[in-house]
Amino acid sequence: MKEIMAVVRMNKINATKKALIDAGVSSMTAFECLGRGKGLVSMDLLKGAEEGHEEAIAQLGEGSRLRPKRALFVVVPDKLVQKTVDTIIDANQTGKPGDGKIWVQPTEDAISVRTSEHGNAVLDEF
Amino acid sequence: MKEIMAVVRMNKINATKKALIDAGVSSMTAFECLGRGKGLVSMDLLKGAEEGHEEAIAQLGEGSRLRPKRALFVVVPDKLVQKTVDTIIDANQTGKPGDGKIWVQPTEDAISVRTSEHGNAVLDEF
Amino acid sequence: MKEIMAVVRMNKINATKKALIDAGVSSMTAFECLGRGKGLVSMDLLKGAEEGHEEAIAQLGEGSRLRPKRALFVVVPDKLVQKTVDTIIDANQTGKPGDGKIWVQPTEDAISVRTSEHGNAVLDEF
Repeated sequence: MKEIMAVVRMNKINATKKALIDAGVSSMTAFECLGRGKGLVSMDLLKGAEEGHEEAIAQLGEGSRLRPKRALFVVVPDKLVQKTVDTIIDANQTGKPGDGKIWVQPTEDAISVRTSEHGNAVLDEF
Repeated sequence: MKEIMAVVRMNKINATKKALIDAGVSSMTAFECLGRGKGLVSMDLLKGAEEGHEEAIAQLGEGSRLRPKRALFVVVPDKLVQKTVDTIIDANQTGKPGDGKIWVQPTEDAISVRTSEHGNAVLDEF
Repeated sequence: MKEIMAVVRMNKINATKKALIDAGVSSMTAFECLGRGKGLVSMDLLKGAEEGHEEAIAQLGEGSRLRPKRALFVVVPDKLVQKTVDTIIDANQTGKPGDGKIWVQPTEDAISVRTSEHGNAVLDEF
């Protein structure tokens, strides 16, 4: 099983949740967070800032600010990893900076607190 | 060492914290989150919704809502993993849907910011 | 690639962010959280509490309280792990209890939602 963690735009979290449920991934946890990506900065802006133009410097400052985002955490069986990643991309890809990122991590076990069961049996399966 | 992440009911976080401290696990981090499990739905409700009964449809909608929960994150040496999982279950198991889930993940190192020490020495031991 | 998760003092998160960006790690996610470390307690306090002194008992109670902290989550290529850990320590080490902790976890893949690219190419590189 794998943990899939995604950081996406705030206004995409509901659409992401619905898309995941439709894809058979109904267990999920969401967190409020602040984030930033690689902070792509235009070369014009950088050049302007180096030349001392105030407006360019101010915009560069903006670029380093952490912005409100939503983090989404799901743990799925190996066979659902690709589908989960594809579903999150489909629900969030606009092609503009800030679309977010997804990470995949190994997970050794999952346990249901209600039943004490563990392993793939407590995860979503399709 | 392993990371143990649990999502539990909001009103159980203090009891969980106390149980973990009593079990020798005193380092922990807690987060507010929204979550849902596999969303067990009664077959009657599903049938009612399929037949177009408004009340059943409304309740199904409810079922997909993310509910306020608490996430708890601890990193413990291998020998404390089972005890930590059992302690979280004991403090949270009511037998009703919504009791929560626990995940176990590999962790390669832990570092104390205060002392720069790393490895099991910076974790809780009993 | 590795996930590096750190829990640090609230008032250190901006300095940590700036230090990481200067070190070439510009993608990051920050969370509000509550946390506590191993809860170092002075032997005098413990002795006082055992002897029934109210003040000592009250302070012991305080010691188990979870305090507001900030969690910082970054995923970096293997070659940036040590630099990232050192940068977080440099920005946060005061030598007093509460400086925080850092954990390192294996991460199998990272995906850019904007481009669908994956692997080290979507991470920060120096």
